[in-house]
Amino acid sequence: MHRSEFQRSLEELQKDILKMGSLVEQNIAMSVESLAKQDLEIAQLVFEIENSIDRMEAEIEETCMRLIATQQPMAKDLRKIGSAFKIVADLERMGDYSVEIAKVTKRIGTNPLIKPLIDLPRMAMLVQKMVKDSLDAYVAENEELARAVGEADDDVDQLHKQVFRELLVLMMENPRTIDQATQLLFVSSSLERIADHATNISENVIYLVSGKRVGLNR
Amino acid sequence: MHRSEFQRSLEELQKDILKMGSLVEQNIAMSVESLAKQDLEIAQLVFEIENSIDRMEAEIEETCMRLIATQQPMAKDLRKIGSAFKIVADLERMGDYSVEIAKVTKRIGTNPLIKPLIDLPRMAMLVQKMVKDSLDAYVAENEELARAVGEADDDVDQLHKQVFRELLVLMMENPRTIDQATQLLFVSSSLERIADHATNISENVIYLVSGKRVGLNR
Repeated sequence: MHRSEFQRSLEELQKDILKMGSLVEQNIAMSVESLAKQDLEIAQLVFEIENSIDRMEAEIEETCMRLIATQQPMAKDLRKIGSAFKIVADLERMGDYSVEIAKVTKRIGTNPLIKPLIDLPRMAMLVQKMVKDSLDAYVAENEELARAVGEADDDVDQLHKQVFRELLVLMMENPRTIDQATQLLFVSSSLERIADHATNISENVIYLVSGKRVGLNR
Repeated sequence: MHRSEFQRSLEELQKDILKMGSLVEQNIAMSVESLAKQDLEIAQLVFEIENSIDRMEAEIEETCMRLIATQQPMAKDLRKIGSAFKIVADLERMGDYSVEIAKVTKRIGTNPLIKPLIDLPRMAMLVQKMVKDSLDAYVAENEELARAVGEADDDVDQLHKQVFRELLVLMMENPRTIDQATQLLFVSSSLERIADHATNISENVIYLVSGKRVGLNR
């Protein structure tokens, strides 16, 4: 394999990662949409897309392994592939959390929501952007963009705390809301964990670009 | 490098992973101990050990890269190194969570605890065992042990729910406990996330041994 051919393989790999990433973004959006609209069909789609995400993880891992085994890439290229390997693991975990959210949709079913969902969809949008930005930062090796993801993570943490406080007040005022409030808290917590994984990816990117190990997630 | 020399390198790698793992176990134990005893010196130790954990992650990643680049290992050996790469990322995240717990110790300081801590230390012990077992399963390529970790994860989830309910009751009875109860809830959640990472490792082991992708963490 010539150098340029290796570069092409690396580009293919990155395209696949972006594709996997957009499936993950889509699943995050749909999981929260299924909850807000109480739409079980959308929830079902989330479970199905999750299978594609898992398959893509396995494929991309295989590609990474094959590239390393057949190419003995050096230094930077090797680290880029090493990062890919960790990134798809993070993406796959994000997919798991969107499935957890869709399960809440199923659990709540047709019971009326205890409150209109406003902050959770906002969190979901922020989180989707974090996923996209972290992957764009990886492909473009853009440290600044990676750091912006860490800042967005603080916003998500703030929203999570706000949701927590609101639900706590609801539960205290009316203990019959406890069941569903706990479920919604779990959704908020899942979104926050997805944000943490996007932050992991960004930390990886910063290490890749600068060699510095940073903790954005503090 | 001869085959046997490669095997020796692989064994060294596994020893380092176990060493990193035992630092992580220690930090989990000490973080919860610092909280239960309200001992800021132990909390400080957790922060220090975290630095060693981060250093070990970087070293083991380097070793993995070097082994792959210089050896072109095939099939099983390659997958074993690929798993190592993912395992140390999981271990490092666990270290982060023990730091989060030690931060709670600092935040609570000398304020009296709102309840004696019983379930959190129990969770911590369970979680430590999960970490140890998941790594032993990796080294021994023991699928059965890996599956047992998935079962232990269910116990941790149960304890987390129990802690959640208890703290909720406390908060409802006495809103002045909300601040600290929220902190303790955060600790319980951190332990549960550590357990999730041990479960990730076990899923990796099962994939390594059997080629099957399983979700133990459902």
